[in-house]
Amino acid sequence: MKFSPLLSELIRTLRYLPGVGQKTAQRMTFHLLERNRQGALELATALHNAMEHVQHCRQCRNFTESDLCEICASPARQQTGVLCVVETPQDVMAVEQTSEFKGLYFVLMGHLSPIDGIGPDDIGLDRLAEMLDEHPIEEVILATNPTVEGEATAHYIAQMCRSRQIKASRIAHGVPVGGELEYLDGSTLMHAFNGRREL
Amino acid sequence: MKFSPLLSELIRTLRYLPGVGQKTAQRMTFHLLERNRQGALELATALHNAMEHVQHCRQCRNFTESDLCEICASPARQQTGVLCVVETPQDVMAVEQTSEFKGLYFVLMGHLSPIDGIGPDDIGLDRLAEMLDEHPIEEVILATNPTVEGEATAHYIAQMCRSRQIKASRIAHGVPVGGELEYLDGSTLMHAFNGRREL
Ligand SMILES: [Zn+2]
Ligand SMILES: [Zn+2]
Repeated sequence: MKFSPLLSELIRTLRYLPGVGQKTAQRMTFHLLERNRQGALELATALHNAMEHVQHCRQCRNFTESDLCEICASPARQQTGVLCVVETPQDVMAVEQTSEFKGLYFVLMGHLSPIDGIGPDDIGLDRLAEMLDEHPIEEVILATNPTVEGEATAHYIAQMCRSRQIKASRIAHGVPVGGELEYLDGSTLMHAFNGRREL
Repeated sequence: MKFSPLLSELIRTLRYLPGVGQKTAQRMTFHLLERNRQGALELATALHNAMEHVQHCRQCRNFTESDLCEICASPARQQTGVLCVVETPQDVMAVEQTSEFKGLYFVLMGHLSPIDGIGPDDIGLDRLAEMLDEHPIEEVILATNPTVEGEATAHYIAQMCRSRQIKASRIAHGVPVGGELEYLDGSTLMHAFNGRREL
């Protein structure tokens, strides 16, 4: 016996979610059918709307359904003259949760990785260059991950800043080598920001 | 900074899935946006279709989008004259995976629990009675969970069978007390079926 076609299809597509295998997908399916059909319909609508309408912010590349994200559109943020460069939207959230940083972001959506054929344009550095040229940025805080690729990316961007006489700094203390920004507690991340050094 | 409205809504509704917290919902959201928008749209459609169209089989109460499920509609299954009573659709899948049992099922979608106000009609025993009266059932295998409520439910149904001169048996060997059928390996479950005893 197999599941009915609609159940099979739901179990199959739930497995697109990271970390969800066959058994978990079955449990999710039965849970929703037995206890929360309304919630499941809300999830279906939310998935549809997000996938159809969420794109990248024109300026910082973070995810948003607007042309400019909430941070880029904020005059207070622009006035700080500080730009924090991170690898992923999750990293923006991690930094935001410290409430220490009040400037703008640039989200690379990755890092330089010549071995995978990922060059400067693939991580939006052409757009970052425009941002540095067009906005009164005084300091760029490089908050890429402390991995080989993250460090290489930070150094590449530091060069871009140097050629424009913009100060570039690298977050430092507290970020464990090989670790990922996303999983750091806010306090450690705050120390990393305060302990940044100029590149 | 908060997530944009569409992202917030997707993260919120992903938490309707069992075992998914805030952090996992965020990871799922970014994963789908970055790597599998098409899959997410397929999931949205599958959720919608399953929640709108999957109901209970008219005869055995298992989930299906048809009036009668595939098992109830099978003449070969009907001819066995054997009916297996389980608590959940997941238990049907667990038994089916052993490929040992070829009869019909009845899915209680729960168990008797007087303390929670769950009586015989709430677990479909009125419908089970009709099934026993209308079909040539020769044996009922009681495969409810080996918990207090599961045992009480099995004994209640055994009484229903006795009053109709239908043999009732209880699966036995190999099911750990307090355990759940759904998580048993197929071999243990096969032994439990073969070692059943009449009630
Ligand atoms: Zn932006
Ligand atoms: Zn059925």
